[in-house]
Amino acid sequence: MKTLVTGGAGCIGAELVHRLAARGDRVTVLDNLTSGRYEHIAGLIEAGAIEFIEADVLGSPGELDRAMSGVDLVWHLAANGDVKYQPGAPTSRDLEQNLLGTYQVLESMRRNGVRRLVFASTSAIYGPVDRSPIPEDQPPAPVSLYGASKAGCEALISAFRNLFDMRCAVVRLANIVGPRSRKSGQTVISDFVRKLRENPAELQILGNGLQAKSYLHCAECVDAMLFVEESAPEAMAVYNVGADDSVSVRRIAELVTEALGLTGVRFLYGESETGWPGDVPRFILDARKLNRLGWRAKLTSEEAVRRAIHEIVAMQENSGAGACRP
Amino acid sequence: MKTLVTGGAGCIGAELVHRLAARGDRVTVLDNLTSGRYEHIAGLIEAGAIEFIEADVLGSPGELDRAMSGVDLVWHLAANGDVKYQPGAPTSRDLEQNLLGTYQVLESMRRNGVRRLVFASTSAIYGPVDRSPIPEDQPPAPVSLYGASKAGCEALISAFRNLFDMRCAVVRLANIVGPRSRKSGQTVISDFVRKLRENPAELQILGNGLQAKSYLHCAECVDAMLFVEESAPEAMAVYNVGADDSVSVRRIAELVTEALGLTGVRFLYGESETGWPGDVPRFILDARKLNRLGWRAKLTSEEAVRRAIHEIVAMQENSGAGACRP
Repeated sequence: MKTLVTGGAGCIGAELVHRLAARGDRVTVLDNLTSGRYEHIAGLIEAGAIEFIEADVLGSPGELDRAMSGVDLVWHLAANGDVKYQPGAPTSRDLEQNLLGTYQVLESMRRNGVRRLVFASTSAIYGPVDRSPIPEDQPPAPVSLYGASKAGCEALISAFRNLFDMRCAVVRLANIVGPRSRKSGQTVISDFVRKLRENPAELQILGNGLQAKSYLHCAECVDAMLFVEESAPEAMAVYNVGADDSVSVRRIAELVTEALGLTGVRFLYGESETGWPGDVPRFILDARKLNRLGWRAKLTSEEAVRRAIHEIVAMQENSGAGACRP
Repeated sequence: MKTLVTGGAGCIGAELVHRLAARGDRVTVLDNLTSGRYEHIAGLIEAGAIEFIEADVLGSPGELDRAMSGVDLVWHLAANGDVKYQPGAPTSRDLEQNLLGTYQVLESMRRNGVRRLVFASTSAIYGPVDRSPIPEDQPPAPVSLYGASKAGCEALISAFRNLFDMRCAVVRLANIVGPRSRKSGQTVISDFVRKLRENPAELQILGNGLQAKSYLHCAECVDAMLFVEESAPEAMAVYNVGADDSVSVRRIAELVTEALGLTGVRFLYGESETGWPGDVPRFILDARKLNRLGWRAKLTSEEAVRRAIHEIVAMQENSGAGACRP
């Protein structure tokens, strides 16, 4: 099996690449190292176990075609993974890196006759809805540019699948946490670790701390993705991937302070129900479709967060670590 | 009320512009005249009743900003309206003209503090589904690049609405038919009229003729759009707009031959269930949400098609006339 992993140096991608290489796939990684890190897969590259191409899915169609040549299956994880929109920032980032990037991957697949794709989508496509847990048949109503771009990617994949006879699996991921750091973007665990190392007396929390979301550990996420790729019967498979519970930001703050051995930390809360513009403050993914197919998360959301915190603290990371999003 | 209509020289756009001007709106039309026609609104322009800017939403941000200045409400209809994908053609047309074009409109709205939008979407976002009729809560699963691009537009609008405090209405239109011709793209009525004028003895039909879809007359479509804009209570309103029945391609062929006064025409059918790659051969839109809000189509799908055929034939159009799609 020859596989291409775009974004294969990112936190989810690197975990996936290690698993694919271990099972004997011939793996090519294409990553622009903007948010991914060479160190995550350096061992495999230097051992000659995988091929690495430093290139962007968006601006390098030649490199992408070279990476795509002879490939049986594409895992498309390359994306801007920072869900936050900073007021005043350009609004084009997610549209370009996620949606147009995905279009370039689909086009390269079409040009090269590659017909199998797994795409890392996100629970952020749903937006804030009354339904809980949220199943796959909930229509997308994203409130972030990140979620909108991923919803657009799913639509494009759906059309390409039909027109060019592809077989595609879309996994809508919960918040994924794990040990590998990333170079850009802050996520809740890394944000708390960094702030508490700077000032162990108090912790400023984005929003009112009551935000509560589904989390999944990166190792379990990759396990689920491999399972969906092998087991889903649909030519256009769409599966939520997450634990069927949630953990609050307030609880994550407690877990991080515990793991750092701190006591008496004063938590300072914001007033907003959301952590940032475009945040979906409370959601639980419905993973029953995936459960019925035969896969279930072993860790609860809180256990996944706890394990990631301990991995991060143990690795003595100083910044940027903690959670990853394709 | 100052309004901007993008695509205001198209078949739906021109009908809308006449209605808006008649009710006293100050109307600016921005159209690149690729598929729209100057003649459709020439009377209003030359009478000084509306302002016309010949420009593209995609490549002319300066012109778009000029058109957007001081606007209260945007009707965004500019798009590639040809749902057909020709094998071998570039796959980028809908992505660029529809999705990136819509992004430029949203960006110009944001830059200019314009907060109200009506967007012409399409039933093609749903793809072929078992459910009939199809309500608005059916998740998109497009099989055409056209449908995918419009689903992507809806997702972008959803995010912009939240982040920049807009008020948006998305109307998902059935097949719209009416008297105004367009310069590019063939649709079922114009295709049949043209073919029968070339050869009144036989008619080649795309697909097996059993395709059956919801149709709506252009005048009723504009009526519904005006109603949704005025009446929908939601900040992000999504409404199907169509008659709650369908008419078959075979029946349309009979109606066209009748209208042309032909008898004994031999119908030649294809073998495929679909008329072209990406066609959704059978669907009925569920318009009950719009009915409950207080609007209902007066014409059935067949009556709408019949009226459009007679208008087209009466206007002695020779080509390109018959149906329009934003």
